Amino acid sequence: MGNPWICKESRDCGDYKIFKVRQDTCESPRTGLDHNFFVLETTDWTTVVPVTPEGKLVCIQQWRPGTAAIELELPGGVIDPDETPKEAAARELREETGYIADDLVPLGTMSPNPAILTNRCHFFLAKDVTPTGERELDAAEDIDSVLIDPSRIPDLVTAGTLRHGIIIAALYHYELYLRSVRRIKQ
Amino acid sequence: MGNPWICKESRDCGDYKIFKVRQDTCESPRTGLDHNFFVLETTDWTTVVPVTPEGKLVCIQQWRPGTAAIELELPGGVIDPDETPKEAAARELREETGYIADDLVPLGTMSPNPAILTNRCHFFLAKDVTPTGERELDAAEDIDSVLIDPSRIPDLVTAGTLRHGIIIAALYHYELYLRSVRRIKQ
Repeated sequence: MGNPWICKESRDCGDYKIFKVRQDTCESPRTGLDHNFFVLETTDWTTVVPVTPEGKLVCIQQWRPGTAAIELELPGGVIDPDETPKEAAARELREETGYIADDLVPLGTMSPNPAILTNRCHFFLAKDVTPTGERELDAAEDIDSVLIDPSRIPDLVTAGTLRHGIIIAALYHYELYLRSVRRIKQ
Repeated sequence: MGNPWICKESRDCGDYKIFKVRQDTCESPRTGLDHNFFVLETTDWTTVVPVTPEGKLVCIQQWRPGTAAIELELPGGVIDPDETPKEAAARELREETGYIADDLVPLGTMSPNPAILTNRCHFFLAKDVTPTGERELDAAEDIDSVLIDPSRIPDLVTAGTLRHGIIIAALYHYELYLRSVRRIKQ
């Protein structure tokens, strides 16, 4: 397997609220030479897979500045400093969709992009979610909820209608969870 | 569904080689108020799912500055300005693993993070790859290839051993491709 590099120096390059840019000078164990890498420091994120008692997924649609387009997604967001990942997931679910759940089940954790991002994203399943009818959108949010039958997910992903990479990874974790549950029940 | 926002002004904030930071001032269609968003401009990426004639996946292991750890991944990288996504995928496969394929099959395209990244990632399947025994690593690369049985992927993802979000999304696209092929054959 690959060898770890030695980070010899770090330099702050810019602070952009939701992320900071840092330059690390690291030594290659293969060549012994130094290389500079730009890294984005950011806090951990969370994504929730909310499922209604009828088995529908509670998805959201919102405009996103990166792609300058409306994206089909799952609820989620940044974990605040005083929160656990599970608390943040429950809060984002409630704020963005108005749905709540008795409990959230961890589905796994991943790194959105180990090449440039320092953070992780924590996935949770929210089973039997119920609507409160009340949402709390930030001023910079404009979100609609939409119930989607999970049988449609493969076509939506393949067609690129659901194209948010982190959401696709969350849905794969959910599929793997369902498979393991079925295996245990057999 | 959500409404598109109107971008009224864009300002360059920083150039960090692999990405540029831009600030967009956009008007919310819900509140009519302006909000500033930081966006990372970057070129499109590609990820390859290489499968040997024996059915093994050609994975790679490399140290990544974002997580400061060695990550289990699939080959891939940045698409150069003069390349199609497919040409970049074939080049990255050859450079990083020494494997080549007669042809690459598109598996779909996704947006790594529509909230902050402008770019897309293009996934390809490389069937029946054969080793040339020759790789071409960049000075800043230190990569090992490893053959992995695809039956191990679910456990590797669930355990967080394979935790690179983009690679997880690529593997889900590959699973969906295999399912659709099986359905056509039935």
